[in-house]
Amino acid sequence: MISAGAGELFQLLRDGRPRTRAELVNETGLARTSVVNRLAALTAVGLVTPTGTSASSGGRPAARLVFDRTSRVCIGIDLGATHGSVGVMDLSGEVLREESRVLDIADGPAQILTWALDTAERLLRATGRKKRQLLGIGVGVPGPVEHSTGRPIRPPIMPGWDGFDIPSFVQQRLEAPVLVDNDVNLLALGERATRWPAVSDLLFIKVATGIGAGIILGGALQRGARGSAGDIGHVQVPGVADDRDLEAMASAPAIAAQLGRDGATVATGDVIDRIRTGDPTAIAAAREAGRVIGKVTAACVSILNPSVVVIGGQLGVNVQEIIAGVREVVYQRSIPLATQHLNIVPAEGGATAGIRGAGLMVLSERLSASAVDDLIAQTV
Amino acid sequence: MISAGAGELFQLLRDGRPRTRAELVNETGLARTSVVNRLAALTAVGLVTPTGTSASSGGRPAARLVFDRTSRVCIGIDLGATHGSVGVMDLSGEVLREESRVLDIADGPAQILTWALDTAERLLRATGRKKRQLLGIGVGVPGPVEHSTGRPIRPPIMPGWDGFDIPSFVQQRLEAPVLVDNDVNLLALGERATRWPAVSDLLFIKVATGIGAGIILGGALQRGARGSAGDIGHVQVPGVADDRDLEAMASAPAIAAQLGRDGATVATGDVIDRIRTGDPTAIAAAREAGRVIGKVTAACVSILNPSVVVIGGQLGVNVQEIIAGVREVVYQRSIPLATQHLNIVPAEGGATAGIRGAGLMVLSERLSASAVDDLIAQTV
Repeated sequence: MISAGAGELFQLLRDGRPRTRAELVNETGLARTSVVNRLAALTAVGLVTPTGTSASSGGRPAARLVFDRTSRVCIGIDLGATHGSVGVMDLSGEVLREESRVLDIADGPAQILTWALDTAERLLRATGRKKRQLLGIGVGVPGPVEHSTGRPIRPPIMPGWDGFDIPSFVQQRLEAPVLVDNDVNLLALGERATRWPAVSDLLFIKVATGIGAGIILGGALQRGARGSAGDIGHVQVPGVADDRDLEAMASAPAIAAQLGRDGATVATGDVIDRIRTGDPTAIAAAREAGRVIGKVTAACVSILNPSVVVIGGQLGVNVQEIIAGVREVVYQRSIPLATQHLNIVPAEGGATAGIRGAGLMVLSERLSASAVDDLIAQTV
Repeated sequence: MISAGAGELFQLLRDGRPRTRAELVNETGLARTSVVNRLAALTAVGLVTPTGTSASSGGRPAARLVFDRTSRVCIGIDLGATHGSVGVMDLSGEVLREESRVLDIADGPAQILTWALDTAERLLRATGRKKRQLLGIGVGVPGPVEHSTGRPIRPPIMPGWDGFDIPSFVQQRLEAPVLVDNDVNLLALGERATRWPAVSDLLFIKVATGIGAGIILGGALQRGARGSAGDIGHVQVPGVADDRDLEAMASAPAIAAQLGRDGATVATGDVIDRIRTGDPTAIAAAREAGRVIGKVTAACVSILNPSVVVIGGQLGVNVQEIIAGVREVVYQRSIPLATQHLNIVPAEGGATAGIRGAGLMVLSERLSASAVDDLIAQTV
């Protein structure tokens, strides 16, 4: 195929710097015909576009080409237990439009995804883009997902979603590749891109209705063999004689249950409200939950040796006793080599981090060298 | 630089298939002059060599070039608490010569490394190679290492080694880059290359005088931010009210201490002997140690989601009660998504796995595209 290798050339151009054909020949050692053919293929699918000419020292000025970040868009859908966010991003990952609402994930996939798709189509229209410009759709859900098929696998807090084929449902409305992942993995990607771009080893811990972690090691999101990496909610707590796992001991419903309420019906918001209004019992329970999360975090620090641990999720962000408890235990328990340069910080990405992470997942998979080659093969 | 990009072209040739210049032009889209220059640079440093000619359909047969695996060698040194192995490997990682002995790591770096270097020089002579053909030296030690400097950092079972500059000491005798890592990381690399080449997510657990893990995720060895990833020996055991960490509860000295001996002076071999001769107290202690290791392994399985867990180390390989205890707890504790396709197997690489892993570390770092470009820049 004449345009083979176009995807690889495109990786160079993703830095956004305009280049002439001659500059690309020099930079890569490629034959001029290779450069010309590959740029033609990239231009045909809209990923590259001419942008003025170079200042030349003589003769006819040469045309320069540049990555066109505006040629396509992707959609990020971030679903939590009690909230949902939808965003439209360009190919640089910049969020063009976004919208969030309170929801109940237990309403089931048809109702929740229909809202998300209605919103996505409306935001897409608002940006003036067409459905055919969609590069892909990323979806984050609050539970374990088989990433290869996009199906939730026995998600504990998502009744009605077990085994549901999210990609097929979405593709009935929007024709584009659909990638699904655990929401915590996407939060890790989003938080890293926003605040820690130079960090290769980052652990994101979400503390909310459930507890889970997203793991970035060696610069890449690590999903493990079946996509369940980071499932710290099912880890038994170190150093404590208790059969329950972390989620049963320190999640928002677990704290609510300790506060003498009916765990099944108390929302995370109620727990946060009681802590904010200064209820000493609630504050003590949150601090103790933080310590329990700290014991599992200390194990993760020994096992993974991250340089940054981000504490996120509704409870993790809004209740300072949680991160205080985590810090107390981790710095007390872990060996100096693992903690000397370790930052434990609250998440700052807010509602946008999840949709930004969903978009980054789409861009990283759909703009890889081989994916761009595929895109060209399908289009040309 | 005229040969820039040679390292990248070399990555293609590492598959061992001979190619003509014309075939490389077609395969890469590079300009013919780029291919010719890059091959000349690779030939000059000996990494590529002519190998006969292609069967041509007419005209003069074209010369073919191939990766020369014999042009250089690397040395792998694997040091445990009570044993040492040294091997010479070619550039494909094949072990040409190796030698092992019993030793005591507490004899300190000067004595131990002097033995290792004497052995390395002797094996090198036996293979008929020169010192100047050395691509690099890989060293594995039984404790935490700062990989970037090659210095052990507060290693608990290596008295006299804390902060010792292993690369400088080695380079007084052998002039080549020296890479140092935890022995368990190298065992993980060696075991994977030998038995699980298609597996991307593998956890290697060494159970001996110490307990540690090597983590391969996303196809790559993960060292974490400071090189201490896999330090499961310092993890508190989940679900047990005990302040001690895993190593204090389930290593060979810990088992020996339970058997009524003085933990400081009992060797791993004595523990193994008592189990082999059918001592029921020793067998029960080993099974219980296996369960304790299983509790930490279950946490690792939830956090990392590997598809293979390899149990190695003197105790892990030789005492079947250890792996039996690990399997019992992991399959009982972990969620189905993480264990449905999980293999828990004993290590099979033997003494060679460590030196093979040390060699693979050298090859992976010293034959990367950028390292080969550097090699050329230094040589030409």
